[in-house]
Amino acid sequence: MLVGGRHFFDDDDAADVGYKSLAVNLSDMAAMGAKPRWATLSIALPDADERWIGRFAQGFLDLARDHDVDLIGGDTTRGPLNICVQIMGEVAAGRALRRGGARAGDEIWVSGTLGDAAAALAHLRGELSLDATALRFCIQRLRRPQPRVALGLGVAGVAHSAIDVSDGLLADLGHICERSGVRGVCEWARVPLSEALLPHRAAAAAQDCALGGGDDYELCFTAAPADRGALERVSHELGVAVTCIGRIEAGQGVEVVDAAGRPLRVAHRGYDHFGNSPAA
Amino acid sequence: MLVGGRHFFDDDDAADVGYKSLAVNLSDMAAMGAKPRWATLSIALPDADERWIGRFAQGFLDLARDHDVDLIGGDTTRGPLNICVQIMGEVAAGRALRRGGARAGDEIWVSGTLGDAAAALAHLRGELSLDATALRFCIQRLRRPQPRVALGLGVAGVAHSAIDVSDGLLADLGHICERSGVRGVCEWARVPLSEALLPHRAAAAAQDCALGGGDDYELCFTAAPADRGALERVSHELGVAVTCIGRIEAGQGVEVVDAAGRPLRVAHRGYDHFGNSPAA
Repeated sequence: MLVGGRHFFDDDDAADVGYKSLAVNLSDMAAMGAKPRWATLSIALPDADERWIGRFAQGFLDLARDHDVDLIGGDTTRGPLNICVQIMGEVAAGRALRRGGARAGDEIWVSGTLGDAAAALAHLRGELSLDATALRFCIQRLRRPQPRVALGLGVAGVAHSAIDVSDGLLADLGHICERSGVRGVCEWARVPLSEALLPHRAAAAAQDCALGGGDDYELCFTAAPADRGALERVSHELGVAVTCIGRIEAGQGVEVVDAAGRPLRVAHRGYDHFGNSPAA
Repeated sequence: MLVGGRHFFDDDDAADVGYKSLAVNLSDMAAMGAKPRWATLSIALPDADERWIGRFAQGFLDLARDHDVDLIGGDTTRGPLNICVQIMGEVAAGRALRRGGARAGDEIWVSGTLGDAAAALAHLRGELSLDATALRFCIQRLRRPQPRVALGLGVAGVAHSAIDVSDGLLADLGHICERSGVRGVCEWARVPLSEALLPHRAAAAAQDCALGGGDDYELCFTAAPADRGALERVSHELGVAVTCIGRIEAGQGVEVVDAAGRPLRVAHRGYDHFGNSPAA
């Protein structure tokens, strides 16, 4: 459920809003290793703005077609702008990826690069200064995240746990650790950054974006070290980068360390519910 | 999708809002002759009012349990009050009741009584004066409509078309007639009224409620005259009254006639899209 003025801005291109309202749901399917099949869409609109609805539908339906997803129902009504999408998909019994399957000894992986979407917002707030090319890239990442459906299908049956990075890496990895009853240790230097963010790696704002910023919709998953080769083959076949950023240990919470293994104090806060880790 | 201040009032008992938000969806299943199985629930709330949420959940979940419906997903977020329920169910291939199956010669049936929910609102607006017992009954009908799931399952395979009365009898029968390419003729004197509304049958406001008022969530369906006995057996077994109120003819639109077959002018308007019938 996406609320106007909260999950998107009133002056956002409606085609981007339509795209993203489905993309974030496809990302949930990806995180479970499921094949998305059907969606429903309910919208409350303050008034019947046909141009807005047309643009919204185009962004939504183009992405649905790309993923062979059928729009099978929904509702329209008058009210404060609200978009409610439900996604349904299929996964073989016992094969669904879950948050609770991480085991001590697993390696922690992420797809793509982290922090780009948050960097666009940080730039607009004046906290980070991106050049024009980098800003354009990051805004595109914010508006048109690529749900990692193929990757989710590819790592299902190999990965022990998975989640999509929508709240930020530390928060979402925290969900895996909490559900699995384990501890996550990430090495900051291994967290993959895009060319847009790489020049800012030393800046606290960039670290905030990559570790605490949401909206990237990359996958974070854990797998046994013995399956590294299998994961790299899937990555190669799909043309989607995956990077090992740390390991799962016995314990609880999520910790970020430097290359020497020393705990890093992460500036971005708000994850108190993950316990006593420095990341909190 | 139900919007606060529009589909319900802020001071309504949250348990009633929870009940009704599922009931109207169960009613859609009933109108298709389907067995409801799974629901999802997404809510936007202006603030985390735990008492409200608890009452809402109780109303929703009690009804879900009564119908063996599992709540399988959803979302919560902050925003103007909005409740989005999706219902999924099962029906054998080819057995679903639809709006487009009415045939000339069919009889038109409705379950229960019509106009009660609208009468409660008409009373509150000062357009109709119900005594205390009648008002209590009508308010209960408004807040706790009984979705006719068992009846829908019972008449599937017999009825040619069906819809639930949520917009008002003339509007909803109009949907059947429009989709089926036929004309509906209802005899006002046969439209079933509750004991609460019966004393007001001659009042224009009562006619408005019964023919134009929504929110009763009774079923309206059409069937061949030869199946009258089968329908009456289903009604008897389930303890749900069904009443034949008219017939389907070749043509278009919906007409209301008196006992002598003369067209009645219905006060309640707003159904212009049903063509040239006096009801429009």
